[in-house]
Amino acid sequence: MTVTARRVHLAQRPVGLPDASTWSVRETRLDAPGEGEVLVKVTHLSLDPAMRGWLNDVKSYVPPVGVDEVMRAGGVGEVLESRDPRFSVGDPVSGMLGIADHAVVKADELTPIDLSVAGPATWLGALGMPGMTAWFGLFDVARLQDGDTVLVSGAAGAVGSVVGQLAKARGCTVVGIAGGPEKTAWLTDELGFDAAIDYRQGDLNRAIKEAAPKGVDVYFDNVGGETLDAALRNLRRGARIAICGAISTYNATEPVPGPANYMSLLVNRASMTGFLVFDYADRYGEAVEGMGAMIADGSLVAREHVVEGGVDAFPDTLLMLFSGANTGKLVLTV
Amino acid sequence: MTVTARRVHLAQRPVGLPDASTWSVRETRLDAPGEGEVLVKVTHLSLDPAMRGWLNDVKSYVPPVGVDEVMRAGGVGEVLESRDPRFSVGDPVSGMLGIADHAVVKADELTPIDLSVAGPATWLGALGMPGMTAWFGLFDVARLQDGDTVLVSGAAGAVGSVVGQLAKARGCTVVGIAGGPEKTAWLTDELGFDAAIDYRQGDLNRAIKEAAPKGVDVYFDNVGGETLDAALRNLRRGARIAICGAISTYNATEPVPGPANYMSLLVNRASMTGFLVFDYADRYGEAVEGMGAMIADGSLVAREHVVEGGVDAFPDTLLMLFSGANTGKLVLTV
Repeated sequence: MTVTARRVHLAQRPVGLPDASTWSVRETRLDAPGEGEVLVKVTHLSLDPAMRGWLNDVKSYVPPVGVDEVMRAGGVGEVLESRDPRFSVGDPVSGMLGIADHAVVKADELTPIDLSVAGPATWLGALGMPGMTAWFGLFDVARLQDGDTVLVSGAAGAVGSVVGQLAKARGCTVVGIAGGPEKTAWLTDELGFDAAIDYRQGDLNRAIKEAAPKGVDVYFDNVGGETLDAALRNLRRGARIAICGAISTYNATEPVPGPANYMSLLVNRASMTGFLVFDYADRYGEAVEGMGAMIADGSLVAREHVVEGGVDAFPDTLLMLFSGANTGKLVLTV
Repeated sequence: MTVTARRVHLAQRPVGLPDASTWSVRETRLDAPGEGEVLVKVTHLSLDPAMRGWLNDVKSYVPPVGVDEVMRAGGVGEVLESRDPRFSVGDPVSGMLGIADHAVVKADELTPIDLSVAGPATWLGALGMPGMTAWFGLFDVARLQDGDTVLVSGAAGAVGSVVGQLAKARGCTVVGIAGGPEKTAWLTDELGFDAAIDYRQGDLNRAIKEAAPKGVDVYFDNVGGETLDAALRNLRRGARIAICGAISTYNATEPVPGPANYMSLLVNRASMTGFLVFDYADRYGEAVEGMGAMIADGSLVAREHVVEGGVDAFPDTLLMLFSGANTGKLVLTV
C-alpha cells in the first residue's frame, strides 16, 4: 500500500523561539513498506521540550534534525500494513514516527502498546518517554530513599507530575515548582503534593526554604536557570540533583549563566547528575509494569493536555511548552 | 608549664584578597594544659586555599573563624607537656594548632605522626589533609577506574600533584592544568603526567581537547571558574567530576558566574559531586598506609614549598596560594 503523508519538515534553524519560518508542511508519497517495515497511521504525537534541542546544529546525545528533514517526534498509531511478522494490521504501536500523519518505519523501532492498560495519549505520557524519564531519574539517578524531601521543577509537566506522584507513593515529602495558581492547586489538591510553589510569585529561594525548612534531599530539575540556583541554596547534606532538562534556557539567544551556587555541592557533599532516558531502554518494561499498576489502582494520575489539530497545528502547539500553557503531557492528535 | 604564644588573630574580615589589615599578631600567656590536654611547640604550619573560605561570615561546612579569634590552621609540632597518657614529651604530633608558635589542645584532637615515614612538612602535605583529599576524592568520589583519562586542575598544588600521581600509579592517562612553564614542566618531567596545560597560555578548551582527544573520564577540580567550564566541554560519557575547591573564585568581590556548560552533564550522563575530606576521617589510616608505602618506594613524589618565616610571615605567605607562587604543599615553618 502506498499513501500520501502530510509531514512537518524543518525549514530553517530557529534563533530563539521557533516560529512559522522554522517549519514547512509538505505532502509526500511514501514508498510502500519493505521487508521488515510497517506502515503506520499516526493518531497521536508527543510534543516534548527536548525537541527544541534537536533543532540546534550542535553535537549532543542525538544528531540534530537536519534542515529539510521531517521533524523528529514520538507518536502512537495503528498499523495499516505490516511486512514484519511481529505486527498485524490494526495493532496499536508507538515509536519515533515524526510529525506526520503516516509513517513507514522499521518494525525493530516500533513497540506494541496495550490500550486496555491506558489510552494512546497516556502511552506518550506516563507510560511513554516522560514516565520512563521520571521513573529512572527518580529511582536510579537520584536514588530516592524513604523519608526524602523531594523538590521537582516543571512539576505540572509530563515528567514532573509523575516524579512527584512516584515520590509521594513512596511516602516522601514532595514540593513542586510550577507556573501559576491553577497548576500549583492541581499539584496539591489533585496529585497530593505536600506543597507547590508558583515560581512567578516572589522569592523562589525563600519559598523553597519555607516549604522544605530542613532542606532538599532530591532535586529533580526540568527547568535549569534561576530555579536550579535556588534549589542549590536549599540542599540537605548528601542531596542528589538529577539533571533532566533546562527548559527555561532552551530558547535563549544570549549565553545563559550557569548555576552560581554550585559550590553548595561541596558544602553539602551533594551530587548533580545528568541522564538520558534512552540509556534505560532495556528496563522500560519494569517501569511500564509499575506505573500501569498505579494507574489501574488510581495511585497515579496520568494527565494529558490533548490538542486536536493535526500536523498543521504542530508549530503553534509546540510553543505551549515554552509559555507553560500545558498541564500534564502535551499531545497533538492527528 | 606556661608559655607565651605568638599567634595570628583575625582582626577583620577581608573583602577580596586578605591584606595587612586582616590580621593582628599578638602574644598571649597560655594557661598550662589541663587534664586531657597537651602543650605543643608548633614547628610547621599548613597553608591551604580553604583558609580563605573560613574568613567569610557565611554558613558553610565549618563555622567561620570569628573576628579576634586565632586563625584556624593545621600544624605539626612537638609535645612540650602532656596531661594525657597517649602523649609524651617530645612526641611529634599533628592537629589543628592554629597560626601560633605554641598551642594547648585537647589530646583527642591530636594525631601522633611517624617521622621515620616522612618529614614533618610531608605530614601536612601528602600524608596530611591534602593527601587525604586527593586519595578519597579520586578513589571514592570520582570512582577512578582502570583506563580512565584524568584531568586535574591546580595540578602543581598540594592536592592536585598527589591526585595526578595516584592516577598514574593506577595506570591512567593524566593531564594536569597549572600556571606557568615551570609547573607544567615539573608535572610532566618529574611526576610523570602524560600532559600538562599552562592555563595562562591560550585557549584552555582547545588545549584540553588536544591533550585528551577522546574526552575526560574524571575531572578533579580545585579551581572552578573558567577551568571548570572548559572541563565540562570535554567530558566523556559517564564522566565523574569531583568538586574539591574553587580557588579561582575565593577572593572574588563580584558575583562569580556558575559553570555555563553544566548541561554537558546531561549529554554525557556525567556527574559532579562535592566532598569534604573530614567525612573520611575514620579511613585516613588506609590512605596514610597506601601513600606512605608509595613515598618509600619512590612512586609518589611528596613536594613541599617550605617558607621559613615564623607566624609573622603568615599574612604574606598565605597570598602565595592565590598568586600561584607555590609548587606543591605550602608550609610555613615556625
